[in-house]
Amino acid sequence: MTTPLSDLPFTLAALREAYAAGVTPADVMEEVLARLEAVRDPAIFIHLASAQDLAAAAAVLGSFDPDRPLWGIPFAVKDNIDVAGMPTTAACPDFSYHADRDAFVVARLRAAGAVPIGKTNLDQFATGLVGVRSPYGVPRNALDAEIVPGGSSSGSAVVVAHGIVPFALGTDTAGSGRVPAALNGIVGMKPSLGALSASGVVPACRTLDTISIFALTVADAYDVFRAASAFDPADAYSRPLPSAAMPTPAPAPRITAPDASSLVFFGDDVQAADFEATLTTLAEGGARVDRVDFTPFYDVARMLYDGAWIAERYAAIEDMMRNRPDAVHPVTRAIIAKAETQSAVDAFNGFYRLAELRRACAPILDAADMLCVPTIPTFATCAELEADPVTPNSNLGTYTNFVNLLDLCAVAVPTGARSDGRPGGVTLIAHAGQDGAIAAQGQRLTEVRRPMLGATGVQTPDLPNPEPAPLSGGDMALVVCGAHMSGLPLNHELTSRGGRFLKATRTAPCYALYALPGGPPARPGLFRCENELGSSIAVEVWTIPKDAVGDFIAGIPAPLVIGTVELEDGSKVKGFLCEASGKRHAEDISTLGSWRRFLARDTNVIA
Amino acid sequence: MTTPLSDLPFTLAALREAYAAGVTPADVMEEVLARLEAVRDPAIFIHLASAQDLAAAAAVLGSFDPDRPLWGIPFAVKDNIDVAGMPTTAACPDFSYHADRDAFVVARLRAAGAVPIGKTNLDQFATGLVGVRSPYGVPRNALDAEIVPGGSSSGSAVVVAHGIVPFALGTDTAGSGRVPAALNGIVGMKPSLGALSASGVVPACRTLDTISIFALTVADAYDVFRAASAFDPADAYSRPLPSAAMPTPAPAPRITAPDASSLVFFGDDVQAADFEATLTTLAEGGARVDRVDFTPFYDVARMLYDGAWIAERYAAIEDMMRNRPDAVHPVTRAIIAKAETQSAVDAFNGFYRLAELRRACAPILDAADMLCVPTIPTFATCAELEADPVTPNSNLGTYTNFVNLLDLCAVAVPTGARSDGRPGGVTLIAHAGQDGAIAAQGQRLTEVRRPMLGATGVQTPDLPNPEPAPLSGGDMALVVCGAHMSGLPLNHELTSRGGRFLKATRTAPCYALYALPGGPPARPGLFRCENELGSSIAVEVWTIPKDAVGDFIAGIPAPLVIGTVELEDGSKVKGFLCEASGKRHAEDISTLGSWRRFLARDTNVIA
Repeated sequence: MTTPLSDLPFTLAALREAYAAGVTPADVMEEVLARLEAVRDPAIFIHLASAQDLAAAAAVLGSFDPDRPLWGIPFAVKDNIDVAGMPTTAACPDFSYHADRDAFVVARLRAAGAVPIGKTNLDQFATGLVGVRSPYGVPRNALDAEIVPGGSSSGSAVVVAHGIVPFALGTDTAGSGRVPAALNGIVGMKPSLGALSASGVVPACRTLDTISIFALTVADAYDVFRAASAFDPADAYSRPLPSAAMPTPAPAPRITAPDASSLVFFGDDVQAADFEATLTTLAEGGARVDRVDFTPFYDVARMLYDGAWIAERYAAIEDMMRNRPDAVHPVTRAIIAKAETQSAVDAFNGFYRLAELRRACAPILDAADMLCVPTIPTFATCAELEADPVTPNSNLGTYTNFVNLLDLCAVAVPTGARSDGRPGGVTLIAHAGQDGAIAAQGQRLTEVRRPMLGATGVQTPDLPNPEPAPLSGGDMALVVCGAHMSGLPLNHELTSRGGRFLKATRTAPCYALYALPGGPPARPGLFRCENELGSSIAVEVWTIPKDAVGDFIAGIPAPLVIGTVELEDGSKVKGFLCEASGKRHAEDISTLGSWRRFLARDTNVIA
Repeated sequence: MTTPLSDLPFTLAALREAYAAGVTPADVMEEVLARLEAVRDPAIFIHLASAQDLAAAAAVLGSFDPDRPLWGIPFAVKDNIDVAGMPTTAACPDFSYHADRDAFVVARLRAAGAVPIGKTNLDQFATGLVGVRSPYGVPRNALDAEIVPGGSSSGSAVVVAHGIVPFALGTDTAGSGRVPAALNGIVGMKPSLGALSASGVVPACRTLDTISIFALTVADAYDVFRAASAFDPADAYSRPLPSAAMPTPAPAPRITAPDASSLVFFGDDVQAADFEATLTTLAEGGARVDRVDFTPFYDVARMLYDGAWIAERYAAIEDMMRNRPDAVHPVTRAIIAKAETQSAVDAFNGFYRLAELRRACAPILDAADMLCVPTIPTFATCAELEADPVTPNSNLGTYTNFVNLLDLCAVAVPTGARSDGRPGGVTLIAHAGQDGAIAAQGQRLTEVRRPMLGATGVQTPDLPNPEPAPLSGGDMALVVCGAHMSGLPLNHELTSRGGRFLKATRTAPCYALYALPGGPPARPGLFRCENELGSSIAVEVWTIPKDAVGDFIAGIPAPLVIGTVELEDGSKVKGFLCEASGKRHAEDISTLGSWRRFLARDTNVIA
């Protein structure tokens, strides 16, 4: 390899390439410690593995194993997640215990070849979005020491932003996996609730917590997510959710953003302009951007700290709050103590209110493929937090607090420097289970914007297009050639059933395309030619969850059928065909080679 | 008609027949009042429509309309459900209000032609399983005045058991729709949570409540369920759930019951023997009966009154409990007041515990098509309740309290008199959305046992076999013409996915059948003729669960496709067809008219 290790940006792709070229994990562990040393920030880690321990962990890996997706990848772990052999403090010395075993997710990452190097600082008990509520000091923001590092996963975000490790684990209840990503110019993936097991994690709000992932690129975060995700019967809140390879981004996603009257920036006009610029980028890339009144989402957001859920934080550390309250950070203690006056009746009244608000948000969510919001409304400085430890923290949660209460997944992505040099970023949000879909759009956005990777001074690399969409076992690929294609009248029959765009391609050159009589909508019929001599027809490949296929097919009228379509690459995929009897009164449009070209011709004729 | 109205058992079928024969709703309303008068139980109704009002309601119906599924059917409504123009008391005079509009479900039933005749007595605020906790008196058990009527839906169960109305609405949180059914020898259907809207219902536990249905037969209860069920956006807990026609009962359902060590009868050996006898009946009918330790379900059941959910009852009547506690029934008040000492932390700790217990119950539920339990462990007498108003009540909930906490649906069915003459009964229980599946098994069980219809002295009628297999909304019909037919090599691809045989029939006379090259197994291709002149081909129609269709289709090779097949009766059903290109090297066997005949010919040739 040509790049010296000290100049290598620590993305997964770069490290894999280096390993394939002969670099050893021992080299990388040394480099990790050297980079950390160079940053001179003792508040990032609460516990760090020794050089000897890291060398030993590197040695255990043996020779390069490309089948282990995270082989030799160092990572940091927020100190409310257990790593065997290290203390877990949750940033509270009196709470500290020695972890005998890895958290479920850490064990999975270790099995995939990754090496945990230490435990990172956090807002105590993961309560906060600022990163300054810790007796272990305040990690410096990687980009600007005046602004807070963000929390609660402060150390994990900062260590990734410096390029010391390719990824780090955080947790996210109110936004702790997204806000610090935005403040440090990196990616923060907040998976669907239940996708990553909570076994071995100190709870904040058990019904709303998830482990989150910080990385320099969306692709890296998603690779880690796939390695980490698995159903865990021992965690009562674990759910079997999809974690297939990242799909190709849908070419024309419906993206909904807050309208002008409901955007909140606390006077930060630069942030407002930056957000509009990103929406423009999305629209230019093919997205249909809708704007709606976001009030119902803010109403949900307010329930997280003003409502009954604060009692979950109390329940998690009830012993501390009752018996050793002085050991709890005073700001944290004041927040959590509010639970003491809340009754079970208050809790249920909160659930009723949330159920009503969910109903109010549902039409907005159902009409879109995803939401797009600023990750943070504005920045907060360390000085501001010293003057008022609560208000700037609350403001930071404007666009994050509602997400887990509504059972949504989210990914915070950097969009490049704002006009004043501070990091810009947005968050894409969708229904639980859509982690791959929003990651794909987030990745595409960063490929267009090519922001700097955190504080590394390196720009987002031009990624090779990923292999088109390996399917998850729960999905079926489906070739569509007519009204079900992106943007056409029946496309919603796929998207409303969880269908995802995979790729645009062509059939093998042995098909005929006919415009069938009837409609609207106008529909074509695809026929395999009996003599095997025909045309190559433009088609799209979509995926549809297997368990939705029956319902989908029930609505397909004769003479259309579902059969097997041969594509130009020789692969055979299920898809739309037509009975031979359907050729009657139909027009052969094979020479056009594409239904879209036929529609354009027809439109022109009419116009 | 030959049967005089006064001798007619009030089932839906009997009333529909009477209406078709010229009986009028006015006649029926008079008969309803006459039957009620004859029973001489002033505690059944809290409010009863006047004879004049009923006559007016009858007149509004106009002439017989068989398209309205409940045309002219009188019904009673538990007095915690609003009926426009009547007071709603929830059995608490001080709580009483005048309802200006029908509850959502009442409105739907009225639209289907049903006529509400009055509001029935209940355990106050639907808190209780006994029916004696009401200032409006105690309805007499319809079968035995010594035993309690059961609650909380006491009046609704008793009025149906007497055959005064064909059905009545109850509500069910802990078992209020099942326990009184068992105590009065009738059917109690407790739908999936969210299937029947709660708009216009006084809540007990909002997250766990549902309207329930009492009837003399399962078929009647299910007909009412279908008319009542619809998604209601105004109820935050409403869910879009299936309510298709009752399916044919599965021939060999997997039914799980408590094992000997975990059955609870409080010393009632007659009940124990009766339950075993019912399990024997089920096994003789083809069910595979498993026995498991039921402890996890009992652990869930205990949470309903010992845990945080009591706070929901408090939340529902917080104003009464705070400002007019003396207006609440003393037993009810003592139970609900326990919520005053429960904190929001207690509530969340309860949810965590429930989540753990759900995980413990899941493998048992997932391994079975349904559970079967005694509806009640034993009986309770009015005298016992006077001595101890709580313990016998709690005991009655042994097999009901866990059902709503686990998001299950249930149907309580009478199985005939026990050896001592008291009514026997069991409850079938399954995952939410399986209302049709358990109703079908329950209906079959009553057709075998033919219990008396409540206290009417009339035996469960021999129902005509329903039309061959109406499809449930979750199933898709599929025409097969080759190796997937009964007994042929690929039939297991249907049966292993829950496929069921529906009928043998033929296609419309416009198809060709070819024997395709390749195999084994040998396979035919069915083609619709382009000129519409062809043969009528023997086929079988199967059903397959919609969510299994994708997986099934994924395994179907070209040139076979799934399209739409026209049958000899003109109906169009999804099924196997073949691409035109598949005719190459294939033999036209249309003149044989059947794949089985081709196989016989071929076998003969080989042999």
